[in-house]
Amino acid sequence: MAKKVVIIGAVALGPKVACRLRRLDPEAEITLIDRDDLISYGGCGIPYYVGGDINDLEELYSTTSHAIRDVSFFRDCKGVRVMTRVEARAVDRKNKCVQICHLETGAEESLRYDKLVLATGARAFRPPFPGADLPGVFTVSNLHEAEQIKSLMTRGKVGKAVVIGAGAIGLEISEALTDLWGIETSLIEMEDQVLPTLLGKCIARVVAAELRAKQVHLLLSEKVMQITRDRKSDTLMVHTSKDILAADIVILAAGVRPNNLLAREAGLAIGQAGGILVDRRLRTSDPDIYAGGDCIELRNLVSGENMMMALGSLANRQGRIIATNISGGSSHFKGTVGTFCVKIFDLGVCKAGLTYRQAKETGFDPVYSAVVQPDHAHFYPSAELMYLSLVADRQTRRILGIEAAGKHGDAVKARVDTIASLLRYGIDVDDVCSLETGYAPPFASAMDVINNAGNALDNILAGRNQPIDAADFLFEFRHGKMFVLDVRGEREARPLCAKYGERWLNIPQNVLRSRHTEIPRDEPFFLICDTGARSYEAQVFLRTRGVENTKHIQGGYAMILVAEPGFAA
Amino acid sequence: MAKKVVIIGAVALGPKVACRLRRLDPEAEITLIDRDDLISYGGCGIPYYVGGDINDLEELYSTTSHAIRDVSFFRDCKGVRVMTRVEARAVDRKNKCVQICHLETGAEESLRYDKLVLATGARAFRPPFPGADLPGVFTVSNLHEAEQIKSLMTRGKVGKAVVIGAGAIGLEISEALTDLWGIETSLIEMEDQVLPTLLGKCIARVVAAELRAKQVHLLLSEKVMQITRDRKSDTLMVHTSKDILAADIVILAAGVRPNNLLAREAGLAIGQAGGILVDRRLRTSDPDIYAGGDCIELRNLVSGENMMMALGSLANRQGRIIATNISGGSSHFKGTVGTFCVKIFDLGVCKAGLTYRQAKETGFDPVYSAVVQPDHAHFYPSAELMYLSLVADRQTRRILGIEAAGKHGDAVKARVDTIASLLRYGIDVDDVCSLETGYAPPFASAMDVINNAGNALDNILAGRNQPIDAADFLFEFRHGKMFVLDVRGEREARPLCAKYGERWLNIPQNVLRSRHTEIPRDEPFFLICDTGARSYEAQVFLRTRGVENTKHIQGGYAMILVAEPGFAA
Repeated sequence: MAKKVVIIGAVALGPKVACRLRRLDPEAEITLIDRDDLISYGGCGIPYYVGGDINDLEELYSTTSHAIRDVSFFRDCKGVRVMTRVEARAVDRKNKCVQICHLETGAEESLRYDKLVLATGARAFRPPFPGADLPGVFTVSNLHEAEQIKSLMTRGKVGKAVVIGAGAIGLEISEALTDLWGIETSLIEMEDQVLPTLLGKCIARVVAAELRAKQVHLLLSEKVMQITRDRKSDTLMVHTSKDILAADIVILAAGVRPNNLLAREAGLAIGQAGGILVDRRLRTSDPDIYAGGDCIELRNLVSGENMMMALGSLANRQGRIIATNISGGSSHFKGTVGTFCVKIFDLGVCKAGLTYRQAKETGFDPVYSAVVQPDHAHFYPSAELMYLSLVADRQTRRILGIEAAGKHGDAVKARVDTIASLLRYGIDVDDVCSLETGYAPPFASAMDVINNAGNALDNILAGRNQPIDAADFLFEFRHGKMFVLDVRGEREARPLCAKYGERWLNIPQNVLRSRHTEIPRDEPFFLICDTGARSYEAQVFLRTRGVENTKHIQGGYAMILVAEPGFAA
Repeated sequence: MAKKVVIIGAVALGPKVACRLRRLDPEAEITLIDRDDLISYGGCGIPYYVGGDINDLEELYSTTSHAIRDVSFFRDCKGVRVMTRVEARAVDRKNKCVQICHLETGAEESLRYDKLVLATGARAFRPPFPGADLPGVFTVSNLHEAEQIKSLMTRGKVGKAVVIGAGAIGLEISEALTDLWGIETSLIEMEDQVLPTLLGKCIARVVAAELRAKQVHLLLSEKVMQITRDRKSDTLMVHTSKDILAADIVILAAGVRPNNLLAREAGLAIGQAGGILVDRRLRTSDPDIYAGGDCIELRNLVSGENMMMALGSLANRQGRIIATNISGGSSHFKGTVGTFCVKIFDLGVCKAGLTYRQAKETGFDPVYSAVVQPDHAHFYPSAELMYLSLVADRQTRRILGIEAAGKHGDAVKARVDTIASLLRYGIDVDDVCSLETGYAPPFASAMDVINNAGNALDNILAGRNQPIDAADFLFEFRHGKMFVLDVRGEREARPLCAKYGERWLNIPQNVLRSRHTEIPRDEPFFLICDTGARSYEAQVFLRTRGVENTKHIQGGYAMILVAEPGFAA
């Protein structure tokens, strides 16, 4: 008899399971249901629709060959039955059926299943402060909201916007508002950096600098307490821990939460983060019920701990695996290393694995390098600076994470994906030093930025490279008395020598060997060059001359400019 | 006592060893010698200098911070002694010294060493046909030749050029001549494809199409027999197996050969390909002599066989390892997976591992997939088609190689580097299907091209996907009687239906389920769509209706256009 398969949720994972299963099992009775009328869409494209990169909402639910993915598409092209505006109300595991309600008519019905797939996704989190549900306060979790926001914009109703939460969606939507619509946008984040769950401080500063350069009003370490509406001006007022901001629109981008109600009420195992628990075959605690996509918890293969990772890419890979398993095959999803990408204005930003802080919290003893280097050969005209940070465990030298940012997003992705794919194999620092990646001048340096990040870590672990973070330097320089030895050329060092006088000494690298005796030997100092390569060399050389107490600034002047763009002014 | 280290060769590996060793060992007496006066340069930048992307030759031997890497740079900045215009004549292993000759004066000298490093590099191969050494016939193996070529060009002496050999250098130099200088350039290759040692046929066709589209006169399966000079016109005449071509300049790009003379005469072990043999610590058969860079043989970690791989990137990584080992550390170079990049006009091309043919020759039973898909989300404006091919072993499902080409070179590199770095770990097809790479619409599709290449291989291995190569299809279609079922929309199929009449049937995918009975059931036929996704789906569907004998065209119409741009005309 034909196998009955019911799939709840028709955005990313659900359609993938249905279509793949149809190809594997021509007989199966596959029913895909969704409470919405818009299905199988690229939700991750919403910020680009709001921002105007994508003009027509239809593009988000069309195929590469411009067919609209609606009920008839799934019926005619895929041989799959889809029921929209249908809500699953309960799962009766004993009798293996799902209670559904047709939302348009209110009619109820019971669907029998042999295998059930939960693809219930996640919903935007509305923080529990007063006013989070006022009109004009939006989340961006589905196409209907996207349309409402865009409609306000096109009608010219928005002059000022406040975005709450500097995660990926918050950043993308801030760009969308500022870039095309020229809206005065404030982005509020309660942590002291952007992308706090995704990036360490170094690369987060690169992103913050880009946001500020593009006129996003970035407010860090600031907490929203409530939102009110000013009756007189009919404007929303966002009350933070430090200020009150007026806004015509407020976007909540405070993360997502898994939709676990159906699973929870059916008695399926739920994890600590609220996601449905699944095994490697993506079965829930009931072997006839599979789950995948944004509603499940995944094992982080670096930390070994469970995490949520709401990404259409993971959902698609999981969908294929679930279909294989339902059809009688055997396919496994082992977990994630948390690979992540985001484009912010002209900057591509990618990460994988753990940040320094996450590594520490997990119980590792982390150490990181931060390098700045052209992505292509420095003599090749297309070269742009890439900022890259690598985290490793001090004792085992195991690589724990990588983060990078740069103007060529694809080039940033190349470095991060390469390490990401290796993270699950437990590579160490030495593997990165000699990592083989494609080389030609239009693509990389002979010693690529990724190798140099490994080399820097190797030298730090050996005690040869004694770095200080650019922001820490700025703090210590401001609040202490240590001087700086600048080993760049005279011309480059001149403005800072003029500004800081005796506290900014310049001895260019090429004369350091003959002039090192000029340096006061009894006090510690900072070493700086443009990106950190020459200051490291100077540190090593000075050590051989008995000058031990130096800190060289990782990423050099480039990282200082990111932390404080006006440093030389 | 200070360790005496002599390094022969100061282009890529040599300087790396010297500088790293200086940082590790402040006392060592390091002497770097080279027969040339120009040292430490990016030889891989030569085509871009010839082509005008790089204006000044100096840029190729300058640092990121614009310091010229000459003798005084190494002395002052790096603490390394360099002797230029000095040739090593012999190595006396018993007495541990190198006989050198100062080329300017003819003076000879003996340098004692504790450790010797051979960084003798490779030289351009001059094929043994008559006339290969005529004036006007160049190789592009050093900066002096590059200057000569560019000087001819700037003086307007070159109207027609012939490039012999369609390897990476041949392609790059063809672009350089054609693109900036508008020179009528013929590129001759004796094999039946470009990049014959680097690419399989599918991706090689993508490259050939790009060359032809950019007016390079590409001649495949054509062998140069001799070069003569026509006295009357003072023009070079290139006699091939098929034709005679006139040229003002001829560039030999027929590969490189390792400079092994010094090592050979010293009795060091040499491999079958002529490279110096080294162990994992990069020691030659004499433990006091190290070697690295273009003069050594490397173990191909996929085939297990030795190979030559002349790349500045490998030389740099090896240089660091040699320095570590000389200084008393322990560092290993395990081999290569043959990762390779080249930019040809608007196309980035990358590969790693084995081509289909190489896999076959190595004794595998290879199978490959070829997919065409946008590199970024198809709804994101920057998306460009990427062509990607994945090779695996049929029985073990082990991934053996990857090749890709597309307009966003960095995006191509991202896919290839990711698989490249995994090749040494022995990943299989399933690992690629669920490979986790960075996802956001500006960077990738939710189901990335790389995953889909894995999925296609998985389906091919399962017998579900029964493909035919686009060029094989063209041959069979021309020389046989099979018809084509085109499952694209009516509008797209119309020109070919009109051209081929009964042999080109169109039933769009969305009506195939209702109209499949129209298809003749007793004869085999081809299935086609735009990129191969829908034709595969149609193949699977038709099989469930008893239509078994179909071949679907891998990469679809996109791959046909690459094989034969005028197919529809």
